Amino acid sequence: MRRKFEKHMKHTDPERGRQIAENDRKHVFHSWSAQDKINPLPIAYAEGSTFYDYEGKGYLDFNSQMVNANLGHGHPKLIQAIKDQADRLATIAPGFAEETRTELARLIAEAAPGDLNYVFFTNGGADAVEHAVRMARIHTGRQKIMSAYRSYHGATNLAMTLTGEPRRWPTPAGDPGVVHFFGPYTYRSPFWSETPEQETERALAHLEEQIILEGAGTIAAILMEPVVGGNGVLIPPPGYLKGLKALCEKYGILYIADEVMIGFGRMGTMFAVEAFDVEPDLLTFAKGSNSGYVPLGGVIINEAIRDTFAQTSYPGGLTYSGHPLACAPGVATFEVFREDNLLDHINDLAERVIKPALEEMKEKHACVGDVRGMGMFWAIELVKDKETREPLVPFAPKPEENQPMVEYTAACKERGLWPHTHFNRTHIAPPLTITEEDLVRGLGIIDEALGEIDKYAN
Amino acid sequence: MRRKFEKHMKHTDPERGRQIAENDRKHVFHSWSAQDKINPLPIAYAEGSTFYDYEGKGYLDFNSQMVNANLGHGHPKLIQAIKDQADRLATIAPGFAEETRTELARLIAEAAPGDLNYVFFTNGGADAVEHAVRMARIHTGRQKIMSAYRSYHGATNLAMTLTGEPRRWPTPAGDPGVVHFFGPYTYRSPFWSETPEQETERALAHLEEQIILEGAGTIAAILMEPVVGGNGVLIPPPGYLKGLKALCEKYGILYIADEVMIGFGRMGTMFAVEAFDVEPDLLTFAKGSNSGYVPLGGVIINEAIRDTFAQTSYPGGLTYSGHPLACAPGVATFEVFREDNLLDHINDLAERVIKPALEEMKEKHACVGDVRGMGMFWAIELVKDKETREPLVPFAPKPEENQPMVEYTAACKERGLWPHTHFNRTHIAPPLTITEEDLVRGLGIIDEALGEIDKYAN
Ligand SMILES: Cc1ncc(COP(=O)(O)O)c(C=O)c1O
Ligand SMILES: Cc1ncc(COP(=O)(O)O)c(C=O)c1O
Repeated sequence: MRRKFEKHMKHTDPERGRQIAENDRKHVFHSWSAQDKINPLPIAYAEGSTFYDYEGKGYLDFNSQMVNANLGHGHPKLIQAIKDQADRLATIAPGFAEETRTELARLIAEAAPGDLNYVFFTNGGADAVEHAVRMARIHTGRQKIMSAYRSYHGATNLAMTLTGEPRRWPTPAGDPGVVHFFGPYTYRSPFWSETPEQETERALAHLEEQIILEGAGTIAAILMEPVVGGNGVLIPPPGYLKGLKALCEKYGILYIADEVMIGFGRMGTMFAVEAFDVEPDLLTFAKGSNSGYVPLGGVIINEAIRDTFAQTSYPGGLTYSGHPLACAPGVATFEVFREDNLLDHINDLAERVIKPALEEMKEKHACVGDVRGMGMFWAIELVKDKETREPLVPFAPKPEENQPMVEYTAACKERGLWPHTHFNRTHIAPPLTITEEDLVRGLGIIDEALGEIDKYAN
Repeated sequence: MRRKFEKHMKHTDPERGRQIAENDRKHVFHSWSAQDKINPLPIAYAEGSTFYDYEGKGYLDFNSQMVNANLGHGHPKLIQAIKDQADRLATIAPGFAEETRTELARLIAEAAPGDLNYVFFTNGGADAVEHAVRMARIHTGRQKIMSAYRSYHGATNLAMTLTGEPRRWPTPAGDPGVVHFFGPYTYRSPFWSETPEQETERALAHLEEQIILEGAGTIAAILMEPVVGGNGVLIPPPGYLKGLKALCEKYGILYIADEVMIGFGRMGTMFAVEAFDVEPDLLTFAKGSNSGYVPLGGVIINEAIRDTFAQTSYPGGLTYSGHPLACAPGVATFEVFREDNLLDHINDLAERVIKPALEEMKEKHACVGDVRGMGMFWAIELVKDKETREPLVPFAPKPEENQPMVEYTAACKERGLWPHTHFNRTHIAPPLTITEEDLVRGLGIIDEALGEIDKYAN
């Protein structure tokens, strides 16, 4: 690593960093931001689980950027695949057949459960959701889509409307057919249940009642993250997803599994639905499919839905569907999973390192209310009081209410770890390739940072 | 070229091509297609203005794929920029500052007219349109968006609803605030005008009347391609765009110029609006910004709209906004334009080669009704009768009505040119870097192919 790092030393010049930060503020318009209130840190270089600023300071990437850099930064196999593809054929229109695109589709279809055998490629997660919904509507001839509160599905208008959290609020509903429902949340049950089993039973009863009241025959699909990602690493209680799929079958509704954040190994299985033994009709993916080295997303489609578009055109497309340069690191991703036995690595570290460490933190820290997760995706939920479970900061906190989280974040960064926080939670989602040493070090930093905010809890 | 081509010879093995085509049919779901009715040609390799199939046959790319490969295939400067960026930092989240992203934003802002000084990056054209519309709605506090018939704006739900041509038909309206209007079309005036001047006057009068009837105070923006691309290379008659902008100012409406297809040199100016001396409030781009080597799009934003989001968050974003690997060939694109004096090359070939050749074809061929264009983007409109202007095939032809265009396409491909056709038109949009020799050869092929279908015209 040192050698490669030296090569990029010219990039770790603080003056250069300041210049970049200044130009950034003059010309780059940033996502989800009040443009005058932000001060983005310039990043010079990244390798493995660490990225470096222009002071030469490294940060352990404990969110894999936006939970996309699943194989870490600068993975040599993925980088080589990009270079080789660039030399041969960087781009070709979707209407042609292309070897790398075809190979990635084959690998995905092979890995996906059931008869999810076809892949429609997009550029990211939001457009994957948009197209999955269109396919579901045309296939069923129905208009309504049910999606969950506490979900995120992207920021194009329809994907935003499907989203079930505050990022949706400022955007007026973009689709009259979207209906929100409550999914299970064992730690804060919206169904007054006391056990996971009860949560499953009540969540399904509640969902069925809503299906009936909306009119089962008007509902094209239920769109749901098998594990809710950005909104809390909500692992569904036992039997919930199987029950949801059974309701779908009962009422002729399709199940669209949104695996944009959790697919491609994040939960310790190639696709998260495998862990719950459920076969969706459509599955959306993006991020981990190629670690986000090149923008890529897509929808995996089962035989029945594909057949709807066998003789009739699918009315949708995009210039970069199946982009060869994006598919190349996708093919390499499957190789890395196989050659490095990556799923074993993930599940081993999850059981042996992460789970015990988080359970210890829960014991130790007054501010830790709940810890949960699977594979390489975990959440620590922070509370003022372990008994009442009152959140350490409120849902969608105002800046002045967010002080504990600001301090936690600063404490992590100071110690060389870049954390993810959302409301009263911090998530743990490092690269799947992280070494045990880095993982242990990072968990130690989180432990220390939690110590700094214990004072806000009883 | 030979040397590099040799390197990729393993890819020009017909058996391998057949294998790829077969796997493609098993797993790849294609845009805008009836999946059982297509037979995509496998492409092995591409360089400059030519791409090659697995028989080793080369095709002059007279549509630059989807009018995106503006600098042709495998441009060494763009490929090198991708490799260098991949070595340093393939990806980083939108929340950071990144040198290449910042530099591309600066170059774009510098090239863009007026105070279009900020860039919000997206993955492609559709999401650029989605975000531009959201910005316009929030900035104005109004909901309606007017867009033109005979337009294409992308295939996410809102972009599809904004589209004004048959690709929209199968998708139910995804937004209640979209209103379509008639733009000018000198060759087939929807306003019974007889001269370009009259077309401008009447198109503007018609538009103003519709603005008044819709309620000027309810309209956030007019979204329009400065030159309608996919729907006919419709060059606006003199004064039209200036008049449209004046109406916008009169009624407090924003003008969003969709330059996804025509930006970045295609029309002989860096941005098409320059050719018409008009400053939009928002400008969407994609394709030519980096020749589509890596998926990239974006919105250029003026100061006033940016300021709306100075203290209040912009409620939108995407995982790959400002993707470094996508921005790298964007920066290289500006270098190529400068170093190769590319705009001069384009305008020289347009005036000296394309225009006279097309005018000759119009004289010579019974089936050619109109030729029009600018820079490196031209259309030949085919008719049954030059007097009545009856189209050679109808608008949105059924397969059985499309025989003349099928024959034309086959005649081009046979001779080694990949043409673009849409309804009764063929477009000419080769890479901006095309050599005079290739251009002349390609125009010769088109001339011959037109000869084969003259029999369908009087
Ligand atoms: C579950 C889920 N769906 C969709 C998206 C949207 O993906 P993108 O940001 O690539 O549009 C995200 C992004 O975080 C996501 O987590
Ligand atoms: C004018 C215009 N806008 C938007 C789009 C959509 O771009 P994309 O296919 O990248 O979504 C296109 C695509 O051809 C276009 O021509």
